[in-house]
Amino acid sequence: MKATAIAHPNVAVVKYWGKRDNVNFLPMNNSISLTVDSLYCKVTVEFSENYDKDFATVNGGAPEQKVMERVLPHLNRIRKLAGIDLCARGAVETNFPIGVGLASSSAGFAALTAAACAAAGLKLNAKELSIISRQGSGSSCRSIYGGWAEWLAGTHSEDSYAVQLARENHWDIRLITAVVSKAARKVDTRGGMEIAKNTSPLYEARLKAVERDLPLVRKAIKDKDFDALGKIAEHEAMLLHATAITSTPPLVYWVPETVRIMQEVLALRSGGLETYFTFDTGANIHLICLPENEKEITLRLKEMPGVLQIHINKPGEGVKLVKEHLF
Amino acid sequence: MKATAIAHPNVAVVKYWGKRDNVNFLPMNNSISLTVDSLYCKVTVEFSENYDKDFATVNGGAPEQKVMERVLPHLNRIRKLAGIDLCARGAVETNFPIGVGLASSSAGFAALTAAACAAAGLKLNAKELSIISRQGSGSSCRSIYGGWAEWLAGTHSEDSYAVQLARENHWDIRLITAVVSKAARKVDTRGGMEIAKNTSPLYEARLKAVERDLPLVRKAIKDKDFDALGKIAEHEAMLLHATAITSTPPLVYWVPETVRIMQEVLALRSGGLETYFTFDTGANIHLICLPENEKEITLRLKEMPGVLQIHINKPGEGVKLVKEHLF
Repeated sequence: MKATAIAHPNVAVVKYWGKRDNVNFLPMNNSISLTVDSLYCKVTVEFSENYDKDFATVNGGAPEQKVMERVLPHLNRIRKLAGIDLCARGAVETNFPIGVGLASSSAGFAALTAAACAAAGLKLNAKELSIISRQGSGSSCRSIYGGWAEWLAGTHSEDSYAVQLARENHWDIRLITAVVSKAARKVDTRGGMEIAKNTSPLYEARLKAVERDLPLVRKAIKDKDFDALGKIAEHEAMLLHATAITSTPPLVYWVPETVRIMQEVLALRSGGLETYFTFDTGANIHLICLPENEKEITLRLKEMPGVLQIHINKPGEGVKLVKEHLF
Repeated sequence: MKATAIAHPNVAVVKYWGKRDNVNFLPMNNSISLTVDSLYCKVTVEFSENYDKDFATVNGGAPEQKVMERVLPHLNRIRKLAGIDLCARGAVETNFPIGVGLASSSAGFAALTAAACAAAGLKLNAKELSIISRQGSGSSCRSIYGGWAEWLAGTHSEDSYAVQLARENHWDIRLITAVVSKAARKVDTRGGMEIAKNTSPLYEARLKAVERDLPLVRKAIKDKDFDALGKIAEHEAMLLHATAITSTPPLVYWVPETVRIMQEVLALRSGGLETYFTFDTGANIHLICLPENEKEITLRLKEMPGVLQIHINKPGEGVKLVKEHLF
């Protein structure tokens, strides 16, 4: 009763930003993302009579309490589904900082769901995994799939899940992640979207803009239209932050380095180099580009002050079970 | 036929951001501002038969062409009103950089209007000056008055002007201006508001939020309620930038230092020091505070990298004619 899964974060080009159902975790709008390959999260789960409580490590250390507060209900959900009541031991390994707007929870809950379900003896298909994973962390339902995925908002728990729009080998593009801050955010994604939904006077207008953008993004992915995809992805990221900064209290997720890179991207584009940025609820920023521009953009980022890490991502695989356990 | 006027910039707590009439320069919404004292613009205008063309200097140098493209139609407007057709010599002096989001055009056109009307022999009251000044640069109609002014959007040219809400001695507060960039913006205020109005999907929602905020700001000024005023001023600045960053193309007026100071303000407030920020269409930023916190905030700003100049403003006077000419 032990299993290990690897999942990758996904970076949304149309963002998940607000729930319309806090019990079933249904989102306000459909969202579309790219699962990326170079960042990963590996999770091992074992259920055993030898354990008299649930316990886990994250990158070798004790997990934060707020992480366990989300993980334990998720484990209970899976135990209930499998009809078991054994305690679990877990271990998590990531190659990137967590809780800094790099979608660690999307990778973490996708891997946790796949590992825990397998360890509990559940045989599930991708749609079923997506539904369960969604209840642990909304955006993780997209990381079940490789390549491009769309989370269908749905109307109840059983029809709110992600589907694959295109496989990882459909389109060779790059998403270069610049880590400029490893500091914990004051307000995490779950808290931020609740504040924005409840207080930003721009929140409803954003939803209308998203409905306009969704079919354009599907078409851009299908047609491999980089310019169209980049423009909308950047705009969608700005829409999220526009509602964040106009919330009460204002949520400013950016740091000086975020803006320096945004300005650099705009300058590069003025100079004819086609690249676009996106970010989630954090200071860190992703640059989307075609393979032929990867080197130049990476060089530029390396020269910029305050860039702590660079991850060059291609479209990544969906969640998968592996044989090498963490313990 | 020579006159000199001094005017101060005004900093809006409810912003002017978009016209509904590009011929008569009528704004989409009422706006409210504080005229500040430490920044100033002095303008001398002389009409004379000795001049065979209009010419001017700005801080001793030749004015930019785009400045003259706005000044000349304004001079013609005043000449027509006065029934003269003499050419003019002008000189402008400022103690702060122009065209960097520090409301130089609000001070400049208020001073130009007062000086040129006086030089042309027109005897006008504040309302009449405000109407004329508005046609040169919208926000300048508020700098006719000291203290707090509201620009009434109106429905045609003759009922779109500013009125004074409170005199400069009504409320002793501070507005500390941190200059972090003297570089010219890629898109100025006039261009930016047009792009935002035409392309941001959040523009209409901003207008609704402004209508909600206007009576709250009037009340905060009347009651000298610093907390209420600060919160709304900051929110209104964010609303403007929310529409800017979601425009096509995106308008990012901030630089890294802008965000560093925003984060510092939020941190100071978390620590119990009540201060709020605002900015216009530029990288530079104003901190609003009560007199007792002026010193500490100024010290903090001086310690921050990238702060080029600090101006400590109190509520300032309206435009006035002076005897000391620039030539």
